[in-house]
Amino acid sequence: MEAEESVAAMAALVAPVDREAGAEALRRHDRLVKPPGSLGRVEAIGVRLAAIAGACPPPVPRRPVVVIAAGDHGVLAQGVSPWPSEVTGAMIAAFCSGTAAVNAIAATVGAGVLVLDVGVASDLPVHPRLRHARVRPGTADLSKGPAMSRAEAAAAVLAGAAAAEDLIAGGADLLVTGDMGIGNSTPAACLIAAFTGKPAAEVTGRGTGIDDATLALKTKVVAHAIDLHRPDARDALGVLAAVGGLEHAALAGLILAGAAHRIPVVLDGVNAVAAALAAAVLRPEAVGYLLAGHRSVEPGASAALDHLGLEPLLDLQMRLGEGTGALLAVPIVIAAASVLRDMATFEEAGIG
Amino acid sequence: MEAEESVAAMAALVAPVDREAGAEALRRHDRLVKPPGSLGRVEAIGVRLAAIAGACPPPVPRRPVVVIAAGDHGVLAQGVSPWPSEVTGAMIAAFCSGTAAVNAIAATVGAGVLVLDVGVASDLPVHPRLRHARVRPGTADLSKGPAMSRAEAAAAVLAGAAAAEDLIAGGADLLVTGDMGIGNSTPAACLIAAFTGKPAAEVTGRGTGIDDATLALKTKVVAHAIDLHRPDARDALGVLAAVGGLEHAALAGLILAGAAHRIPVVLDGVNAVAAALAAAVLRPEAVGYLLAGHRSVEPGASAALDHLGLEPLLDLQMRLGEGTGALLAVPIVIAAASVLRDMATFEEAGIG
Repeated sequence: MEAEESVAAMAALVAPVDREAGAEALRRHDRLVKPPGSLGRVEAIGVRLAAIAGACPPPVPRRPVVVIAAGDHGVLAQGVSPWPSEVTGAMIAAFCSGTAAVNAIAATVGAGVLVLDVGVASDLPVHPRLRHARVRPGTADLSKGPAMSRAEAAAAVLAGAAAAEDLIAGGADLLVTGDMGIGNSTPAACLIAAFTGKPAAEVTGRGTGIDDATLALKTKVVAHAIDLHRPDARDALGVLAAVGGLEHAALAGLILAGAAHRIPVVLDGVNAVAAALAAAVLRPEAVGYLLAGHRSVEPGASAALDHLGLEPLLDLQMRLGEGTGALLAVPIVIAAASVLRDMATFEEAGIG
Repeated sequence: MEAEESVAAMAALVAPVDREAGAEALRRHDRLVKPPGSLGRVEAIGVRLAAIAGACPPPVPRRPVVVIAAGDHGVLAQGVSPWPSEVTGAMIAAFCSGTAAVNAIAATVGAGVLVLDVGVASDLPVHPRLRHARVRPGTADLSKGPAMSRAEAAAAVLAGAAAAEDLIAGGADLLVTGDMGIGNSTPAACLIAAFTGKPAAEVTGRGTGIDDATLALKTKVVAHAIDLHRPDARDALGVLAAVGGLEHAALAGLILAGAAHRIPVVLDGVNAVAAALAAAVLRPEAVGYLLAGHRSVEPGASAALDHLGLEPLLDLQMRLGEGTGALLAVPIVIAAASVLRDMATFEEAGIG
């Protein structure tokens, strides 16, 4: 089977979330020993987890894993970031040695860390935390032509899905999106512009913290790429191939595989939500399995979240990526399930 | 020594936070393998933790404990809450049996749970999670006269401090405020009105979720109490005695003791911030040791946070109390310390 057909077949496996289980969680919340509604959004997350699992109470996630999809970007040649591509590989070395921000935060919340190379340009070592599934060594410059072929985009989607499948088979019960790729907020902005129809100026941000001149250039590059490719928002693989990154395609695959297995997927920042827009086109039902971990300061992130109808759990003014913001939301997700499972009802407590 | 003098002596032990250690954390953040500032408020919390500990990197909290200060309230006779006082005791039974929201959330974030009875009206069992330090069995009706005497307020402050001292001696390295007391959002609103000078209508909220008529009555009770007592905002024990709850006094003591030991204190909702206002009058330096865990939906909570100059970490539309909102912020606090301690610098990673 062609990669593109495999993507369609996999997307078709995603069933709608179970509204009845969600409604049962809503009713259960009103019987637990607390004023109804007093846990606010934690209750809403519990309802969502029940709908995702198709069970009330939902299972309490015990083995969260962050998957850091990694790739490099030909568009870096346009000067959209002050960091060179080599930093992608150097940061992956830090992820493997356990000395990056994502490692410190994953350890805090009890999450495993897997790096998924779908498109890094530099040589990488063999390491137990690193999964090799490179489709190509970085994208082509999206401001000159397609970032990759449709077949490559599909292969990256499948690589992300395969990583998720293997993790789930190994016991992972909560997936967290991470990303690494110097320059990747440029394709993220392109994807968000393409899928939401918003102008470049509204979805392009400072990424790692670029200055005004670089931001103006980056915005121009995004606007030009949309003009050049005129991507069709209904054709997710076409959009990914034209203006995406290999890591965005992989995260779209991870989302679809998580959803197909009724596993919640916690989204990190602008790269994650750009990937989620692609997943949502491939299978609208997948959106029901997504939890927005945090609101990145990147303007494109908020545009994508609005488009997806997702309200983030945290707003800590973060813009690092790697999965760091989403990981900080993991305890809230676990607590939301624990509350439904472990609290007594008023009847059990002999109150009221 | 009189209780009141003991409070003053204890408050005097709180030293200012260490600005130099904070500045060192700020500089260290710019050398770690991430774009400067990209962890947003997590970096600011790390700076604060370094200033609190007087060390960079600050110690990573390993033994957080939530202290649920509990008391009953004579003002309940005015009809400010639909729940009877007996529910305070029933909820404490749930905290002891591990079936309340605070237990589920504390377990999620790895925090211990201690219930501190400083003023409950009903009989309570002996239980390892329950510390008996009852000053009186509930306050008097603050709408008719003082809620308690100054000596009782001081004794409750000392009871909270003693609980904190014992926990810290036992290894607790992060204190989280919790509270239980049917009706306690009324004295909380009175305390906030008294300390901030804001009118009753701006600081009185729906507590457990009261209807419009009860809210109107509650607001009138708060306004009347302020008129009746005309408390002096510079006299913390006087304000606590006139319109406070025993649990608010105890939490003020817990804050002072934590600060005296350079231990961070994470504040929960409206009752915690009302207590923090009292602690801040007893010792302004204590504010530097406080982290606001979340923004309660109670309007008085936001008024108090503004007055204290604290920005909460979470805004999840919670209004339960018990310490639930603050506990959900604990992983963010731990992560903030871990990042400073466990991340490599660019130099160590061989980047740049």
